[in-house]
Amino acid sequence: MYYPEPISKLIDSFMKLPGIGPKTAVRLAFFVLNMKEEVVLDFAKALVNAKRNLTYCSSCGHITDKDPCYICEDDKRDRTTICVVQDPKDVIAMEKTKEYNGLYHVLHGAISPMEGIGPEDIKIAELLKRLQDDTIQEVILATNPNIEGEATAMYISRLIKPTGVKITRIAHGLPVGGDLEYADEVTLSKALEGRREL
Amino acid sequence: MYYPEPISKLIDSFMKLPGIGPKTAVRLAFFVLNMKEEVVLDFAKALVNAKRNLTYCSSCGHITDKDPCYICEDDKRDRTTICVVQDPKDVIAMEKTKEYNGLYHVLHGAISPMEGIGPEDIKIAELLKRLQDDTIQEVILATNPNIEGEATAMYISRLIKPTGVKITRIAHGLPVGGDLEYADEVTLSKALEGRREL
Repeated sequence: MYYPEPISKLIDSFMKLPGIGPKTAVRLAFFVLNMKEEVVLDFAKALVNAKRNLTYCSSCGHITDKDPCYICEDDKRDRTTICVVQDPKDVIAMEKTKEYNGLYHVLHGAISPMEGIGPEDIKIAELLKRLQDDTIQEVILATNPNIEGEATAMYISRLIKPTGVKITRIAHGLPVGGDLEYADEVTLSKALEGRREL
Repeated sequence: MYYPEPISKLIDSFMKLPGIGPKTAVRLAFFVLNMKEEVVLDFAKALVNAKRNLTYCSSCGHITDKDPCYICEDDKRDRTTICVVQDPKDVIAMEKTKEYNGLYHVLHGAISPMEGIGPEDIKIAELLKRLQDDTIQEVILATNPNIEGEATAMYISRLIKPTGVKITRIAHGLPVGGDLEYADEVTLSKALEGRREL
């Protein structure tokens, strides 16, 4: 027994988090010992509250503390458009742009035969159900620009096409602030392909 | 408001830890949401317990959940030797070697004029008090091998010398598994200076 029990338990807890190995866990645990007691209590409460009070919106699948979520409930939002993303974090990323005012649908994953994730393992059925409502006019597919995301976007677009709803995919191209010289060939050819008249 | 309140509070708590920025905090917070409830509760309990139940040993200054600590209390340890270190984590590092069986004294810092830390700001007075007990025969100075640690070791050795107690300093030299080619000049010259007959 190198550490007194209370601290070794705290180290073990920190080590369960991703990207935190034994050395970082020790550093964090000792840091906690030097924090003010009320800050530590707030941390402990935040952990329990986040776990207990957060759930997924029954409509869009975004993370929320009330159902339906604050986005689905907002009257000012455009209810004719649904943006399909893989993860609640992607909703936040989209919200930060302040450019999108429609609704969302979180798939909670992407189709990945390599990892054994099929269409029935992610929330595609729920999306189709939402589309039965005639108010939806456009579905924006904003899955990740990688193999799994593309496959998922293709799969969903084929399913939705027959319903006549407009389907779009977010653009591929060079990231803003990027450098043409260091862009990979695929991105560059996609950027060329998607060029627009000025 | 991008995140529901419970998760933004958890993100804020994670961001108070060292080396954890906004992106890592978000990643950790979302990871917590997917952990089992009992694991999260254990984490919260560990935080509160560590903060509430841990204190510093009134004798050696090591971190402990009972006073005196498990090392000071252990009858099997050699009570004639004290190893002086800067930090409770250094006690753990020494214990892991399984080579040392004496007592410790944690200074909780090192003399650093640059940071305004003087001899009275670290636990040197407490060390001198312990030395009044005639059982102590050797003091091993195991402060860090940097400017502050060396200065602290020099300062303490001058204070203790008149008492006639044996004072030693841990050896400087090449780390095991290191490479002569990449060793810095100071370390290499210290290693040469400290050479021993075989």
